[in-house]
Amino acid sequence: MPHRAAPRVYLAGPDVFLPDAEAWAARKQAICAGYGLTGVSPLDALEGEPADWAALPEWRRIGLRNEAHIRGAAALIANLTPFRGPSADAGTVFEVGFMRALGRPVFGYATVARPFTERTLDWLGIRPAPDMAESVRDDDRMLVEAFGLFDNLMIEVGIVASGGELVVEALAAAERWTDLSTFERCVARAAAVLLK
Amino acid sequence: MPHRAAPRVYLAGPDVFLPDAEAWAARKQAICAGYGLTGVSPLDALEGEPADWAALPEWRRIGLRNEAHIRGAAALIANLTPFRGPSADAGTVFEVGFMRALGRPVFGYATVARPFTERTLDWLGIRPAPDMAESVRDDDRMLVEAFGLFDNLMIEVGIVASGGELVVEALAAAERWTDLSTFERCVARAAAVLLK
Repeated sequence: MPHRAAPRVYLAGPDVFLPDAEAWAARKQAICAGYGLTGVSPLDALEGEPADWAALPEWRRIGLRNEAHIRGAAALIANLTPFRGPSADAGTVFEVGFMRALGRPVFGYATVARPFTERTLDWLGIRPAPDMAESVRDDDRMLVEAFGLFDNLMIEVGIVASGGELVVEALAAAERWTDLSTFERCVARAAAVLLK
Repeated sequence: MPHRAAPRVYLAGPDVFLPDAEAWAARKQAICAGYGLTGVSPLDALEGEPADWAALPEWRRIGLRNEAHIRGAAALIANLTPFRGPSADAGTVFEVGFMRALGRPVFGYATVARPFTERTLDWLGIRPAPDMAESVRDDDRMLVEAFGLFDNLMIEVGIVASGGELVVEALAAAERWTDLSTFERCVARAAAVLLK
């Protein structure tokens, strides 16, 4: 078989906020390599980074670097485990939308399985009626989205329409951010799509 | 002066969850018109919508329609007022990232002025030390982002790098979703950029 370069896959997620984030990124990259993919971490240096970025504040450098990493990737795998609220980490969601606009496959995974509507009602302290209609509203009278999805519909549409997949699995709370088995299942699905 | 079509601006935000969302969208569109812009609401019908979308479930139709509306717009104005957690609404953040990838200006506004780090610490129930270092972590040992920004850095980088602007202003809680004066200030800034 002719040699083919391993497709680059951007690894989006709040994992960058973990202690020893570099070590976690390296573990994820090793898993990707085992499936024939090159995992690109937000913590990776950017080859050919413009020299004038050195003068920018750190947050701008990080953001522009992540955008460039996504543009240089064939696909994206997002850790969509709910983060400080009913939805996924905002930075990760931004990156999911960014890659979706580029038209390349977006994969997502989460280690919490409860549906979005239930998580939102929990967060709001609203106990749903057994036959919850679509008309539940919060104290600001804002509607609670009730499509039976895993997170806001834009995220799930982005994944499905891009040709990606969503892998959701309930792990024990203590393992939610550190057990990489759900991530690995998602990498396997991405490899099946990208290497077919 | 030669006639020039009003640039289309996509109006992203959880305003779609308000009661009478169509009426709120119409108010926002009237404000846009006053500044020479055409506001495009997520609730607007999509001209030329593919016939086969009729067979899709509602959530997929909504998502694909929003993506098409964004692709057809010259800029995006996002309501980034924190929504059910320290960050903006996930669907809105997805759309901000989507438009940023298209390379067109992204504007944002919010009616809550407290910085992201303070909102996150509040949410976590952590009282910051007066000289809070960057090393505050939550119960999962995940770092609290502390760049002095308004929300996750990806959102703010996306706005700044796109040539857009962020307009933030503290309104009374009861007016947070219904007072459109902050939105109007943001529209004025967008018009200054788009019509210059």
